[in-house]
Amino acid sequence: MLTVPIEVRFRDLDAIGHVNNAVYLTYLEQARLAYWAALTGQADLRSIDIILARVAIDYRSPVSLGESLDVTVRCASLRRSSCTLELRVTERASGRLVAEAQNVVVYYDYAAGRSKAIPETLRQRIRELDPGVEETPSAAATGGVS
Amino acid sequence: MLTVPIEVRFRDLDAIGHVNNAVYLTYLEQARLAYWAALTGQADLRSIDIILARVAIDYRSPVSLGESLDVTVRCASLRRSSCTLELRVTERASGRLVAEAQNVVVYYDYAAGRSKAIPETLRQRIRELDPGVEETPSAAATGGVS
Amino acid sequence: MLTVPIEVRFRDLDAIGHVNNAVYLTYLEQARLAYWAALTGQADLRSIDIILARVAIDYRSPVSLGESLDVTVRCASLRRSSCTLELRVTERASGRLVAEAQNVVVYYDYAAGRSKAIPETLRQRIRELDPGVEETPSAAATGGVS
Amino acid sequence: MLTVPIEVRFRDLDAIGHVNNAVYLTYLEQARLAYWAALTGQADLRSIDIILARVAIDYRSPVSLGESLDVTVRCASLRRSSCTLELRVTERASGRLVAEAQNVVVYYDYAAGRSKAIPETLRQRIRELDPGVEETPSAAATGGVS
Repeated sequence: MLTVPIEVRFRDLDAIGHVNNAVYLTYLEQARLAYWAALTGQADLRSIDIILARVAIDYRSPVSLGESLDVTVRCASLRRSSCTLELRVTERASGRLVAEAQNVVVYYDYAAGRSKAIPETLRQRIRELDPGVEETPSAAATGGVS
Repeated sequence: MLTVPIEVRFRDLDAIGHVNNAVYLTYLEQARLAYWAALTGQADLRSIDIILARVAIDYRSPVSLGESLDVTVRCASLRRSSCTLELRVTERASGRLVAEAQNVVVYYDYAAGRSKAIPETLRQRIRELDPGVEETPSAAATGGVS
Repeated sequence: MLTVPIEVRFRDLDAIGHVNNAVYLTYLEQARLAYWAALTGQADLRSIDIILARVAIDYRSPVSLGESLDVTVRCASLRRSSCTLELRVTERASGRLVAEAQNVVVYYDYAAGRSKAIPETLRQRIRELDPGVEETPSAAATGGVS
Repeated sequence: MLTVPIEVRFRDLDAIGHVNNAVYLTYLEQARLAYWAALTGQADLRSIDIILARVAIDYRSPVSLGESLDVTVRCASLRRSSCTLELRVTERASGRLVAEAQNVVVYYDYAAGRSKAIPETLRQRIRELDPGVEETPSAAATGGVS
């Protein structure tokens, strides 16, 4: 698990006066980037062989200007070529839950245009960072990303 | 059902060279806004008593600069105080599926800080716009928004 | 001269309820992109050898949701390796002036990391698009970009 | 003078791979907000009687992901109802100059829709924060904002 601090910017608000719903994905992206850097030592998303396949986010409480946030990321499940990250966004001072999200991230061969197996060295680093990660041995699978 | 055209801006791309994952929520927001305007005649989200509770989005195909998109919105299910919108993003010229999303939108009393029942006039307009909408008579419910 | 239509998005507003000051630069960028495409036939900023050196913008009137804008671009002056674009943003329905801007754009050799001379073919296209463009024969120069 | 730290986000980059030109205005906005909060004790731009009239920005060096920035703000000149802020953006680790900007900010009566005199208490706080500020006694003036 990793916790990533986020500073809310005035531009993150919308005309309602709260952080706009789309901006949460930017916060999650910062957290994924930090998580992947912790796993691989690579800090630049552009050099990372992952692609975002799915996001689900439950908005629990609006965020106002002046609040600081923390995003925690953990890898909840690991499959042959994809994994599911669980993310929680909380307000730093109060610990108030702001949002919960799942991200499905696919290990991806951009040149070939298809998913590839997550290498064992990376799987091992994920187990170290998230000892509770659930592993699906094989994806005999259901038509989705495995 | 309603279809809303979206023009991709250079700023919508990220360093990977495709439309950034967060920007899809901005496209969905434009579509929700147009859908709500079609329902109520109100064009400004700020005067609309809705709050976004949940978004799920499956990214199907990356979008490049120069492509034009269409977002279709339809109300798939209608509950006492919330509804689920289903949205599809396609590339205009080819019809290529770009993303699929669900949005749970809650009819909300901002002053009281809680959900409120969707009035019958609005329900009727939803049925007119989306004759196939599924209606849940009561929310005996599962702990979620009803 | 070229006129580029812009559709205001809900996300372009800020907590004041008007289009945020930074978003104007995104509108100007769309206009520059279209102008450069008209000059060169290239539609992707990434394949274009230009770099933005300076922006000045006067905000004349706030923009609200529901308004549509037009950005006109013309090349006002042309130097050895740079040019100054003048841009005007107006509200489409009323013609109301929203903002005026100048952009200094430098023709740039990214590999060498320095400016390069604007080729004669490109200068000729600029003269065709903007017959009134002022040309500075040589840049005996003032320490700035010439 | 005030220095405000900025963390670059992945979303701040564009398809060229550098921080997008429009995002600099978001960084400047964060700095203005902090400066105004230091002057007035008010942390929310929405409760502040200022309007941005003009921005000029010279881009000196591109910014990459992983870099951290500092924005320094100082009030360079003070008129009856407006002031000019000078801002410098530098890369934190190297001190490299990234951008220089001027912002003309007008003290504004939103209800009346016109500028108003900057009150003496606020002028005094500006002098304290920026002892070198130049003051124009009266704006007999040139048709612009005074």
